[in-house]
Amino acid sequence: MIRIALDALGGDFGATPNVLGALEAAKRLDAEIILVGDQTVIRRELTALGHSDLPKNISVVNAPDVIDMGADPAREVRAKKTASIVVCAELVHKGQADAFVSAGHSGAAMVAALLRMGRIKGVLRPAIATPMPTYEGVSLLLDGGANADCKPIHLLQFAVMGSAYMEKVFDVKDPSVGILSIGEEETKGNHLVKCTVPHMRDIGVNFKGTVEGRDVNTGETDVIVCDGFVGNIVLKMAEGLAKTMMNMIKREIKKRPLAMAGALLSKGAFKAVKKHTNPDNYGGAPLVGVNGVAIISHGKSNEVAIFNALKTAVKLVKKDFIGDVAQKMAALKDTFERIEAECAHEGENNG
Amino acid sequence: MIRIALDALGGDFGATPNVLGALEAAKRLDAEIILVGDQTVIRRELTALGHSDLPKNISVVNAPDVIDMGADPAREVRAKKTASIVVCAELVHKGQADAFVSAGHSGAAMVAALLRMGRIKGVLRPAIATPMPTYEGVSLLLDGGANADCKPIHLLQFAVMGSAYMEKVFDVKDPSVGILSIGEEETKGNHLVKCTVPHMRDIGVNFKGTVEGRDVNTGETDVIVCDGFVGNIVLKMAEGLAKTMMNMIKREIKKRPLAMAGALLSKGAFKAVKKHTNPDNYGGAPLVGVNGVAIISHGKSNEVAIFNALKTAVKLVKKDFIGDVAQKMAALKDTFERIEAECAHEGENNG
Repeated sequence: MIRIALDALGGDFGATPNVLGALEAAKRLDAEIILVGDQTVIRRELTALGHSDLPKNISVVNAPDVIDMGADPAREVRAKKTASIVVCAELVHKGQADAFVSAGHSGAAMVAALLRMGRIKGVLRPAIATPMPTYEGVSLLLDGGANADCKPIHLLQFAVMGSAYMEKVFDVKDPSVGILSIGEEETKGNHLVKCTVPHMRDIGVNFKGTVEGRDVNTGETDVIVCDGFVGNIVLKMAEGLAKTMMNMIKREIKKRPLAMAGALLSKGAFKAVKKHTNPDNYGGAPLVGVNGVAIISHGKSNEVAIFNALKTAVKLVKKDFIGDVAQKMAALKDTFERIEAECAHEGENNG
Repeated sequence: MIRIALDALGGDFGATPNVLGALEAAKRLDAEIILVGDQTVIRRELTALGHSDLPKNISVVNAPDVIDMGADPAREVRAKKTASIVVCAELVHKGQADAFVSAGHSGAAMVAALLRMGRIKGVLRPAIATPMPTYEGVSLLLDGGANADCKPIHLLQFAVMGSAYMEKVFDVKDPSVGILSIGEEETKGNHLVKCTVPHMRDIGVNFKGTVEGRDVNTGETDVIVCDGFVGNIVLKMAEGLAKTMMNMIKREIKKRPLAMAGALLSKGAFKAVKKHTNPDNYGGAPLVGVNGVAIISHGKSNEVAIFNALKTAVKLVKKDFIGDVAQKMAALKDTFERIEAECAHEGENNG
């Protein structure tokens, strides 16, 4: 049976959403959930939820240490061998779990995955792949913030891993890939984009060209690649702008009694939009490229978000996402080496 | 009297919004508007609008050539000396106009301004400064897309010019400045941000630290600086996402008869939000750093947008924005030279 380690105390709301999500997963998914964290707290939570006897496919692994949110994640992960996130990654590394899910400190989760699980052979930089709601469905943006500075070879590898992810998790056949840029012409963009584009057709992905800012949320392509600096700004901005717009609408409605009545009648429509754009429904953001399934959930994850992240983890394990990426990396080994050499040269001329 | 050259046929809707905006400006502003473009078309438009006799503070300068939107803007500007945008910039350069406004091809407008008017002494890279609606008011983002790849010194100069702009146009005293980045800590970000931040306090602006993507539209700071690649993506994304969200809301409302009734009642509130977020009300985006006032308006500018751009141009001339920036650049000459030398060094070590 597939075993998923869950960072049981990770996230802004402590044990409750994690344990609730795990209980739901244990009921509905064909998987064992390993709750990793301070066992006293986990047991107390389970008892409070009426599960003083563990369901048969839930187990607990004690990991009493806590990552200091304010400290340097790399140092914390190295120093605290029994922090829950470190134990999660270690369980995957030792083959005692097939995947981990954490809503805790995302920097620490990344470092733990990288240090304890290592990278898939050939992958230079793991990336955060974030499913973003679009008008019709969902696009996968990567890198969502793991690598602030990138080289062309990194973006190319993100394209390969992102395509594999959309195939496995969202069942998209031959996913289309775009590179985030300015202007539609392939000759525009910054130095990184201009060096990356010419190689996009050599790596076996369904490359569709550049995607402009205005099309990030229209579903123009299934996968959008960019460096982690731009990606993180785009993701956070989407979140912030949606909230600001909703607040503006509320403010104007509150000024108008008739509009207040109207808003009551339209409530269902707004709820539907909120549901569609809610990240909780998209199963967390995997760190792709590490040698094992690692899913990083939003700090504000509720039990639905945790359940969906666990469900995604099971899917990735079942469909052997890691094996698939490893195989693609092996097949592209020579191509990537050639591109890396060529791009180093390009950098010298134009950088 | 202040004289503003207007690219009379620029923009997606031809002469009409330009001429209407000019007529309104001639009536309400203490300025002369010079309509630049094919004089036959301009005269025909004026006649159609009941002005076969020119109002006393409107004049026409013939510029029959047209910039090919698909061609390379630099080549077009060099080749077509009587294209309207080239003539506009030339009029400013020769002192026959104090400023120009164009809703035409923005690339061509930038090149024309740069080639014909030159830069303010000390400015390395002119930038597009775009006013962005926030929850309460407006923030100025620069660079909006003129420079895809930037160095620290460029961002620092954007901060100085953006502050001057917010003071002059939006009457903000000691405007706050943020640098767009990921994470709130000043130690995070990409290489460019990390090299820029330590110098932000040396240049006499009211630096408040980093601004994350989620705060781009909350009005965290009056000025937000970033490179033109990130800036263009942010601006286009704000536009696209707002539209996508409105479309999603509409779609859900249409599915529900009660919500349709509700939407009718709330119409005023939505109109108010639309008005507040409408770029037409913010007077176009100036190209700051060129040696003269140059305002680039959205291609979809209507007569309100054109009027507001003309009004902003008058304000910038009246308040001697160019003189103010020139003075600041002169005062910071040694500081900028020192920083440039230091950053070249930093680049070698960490780049």
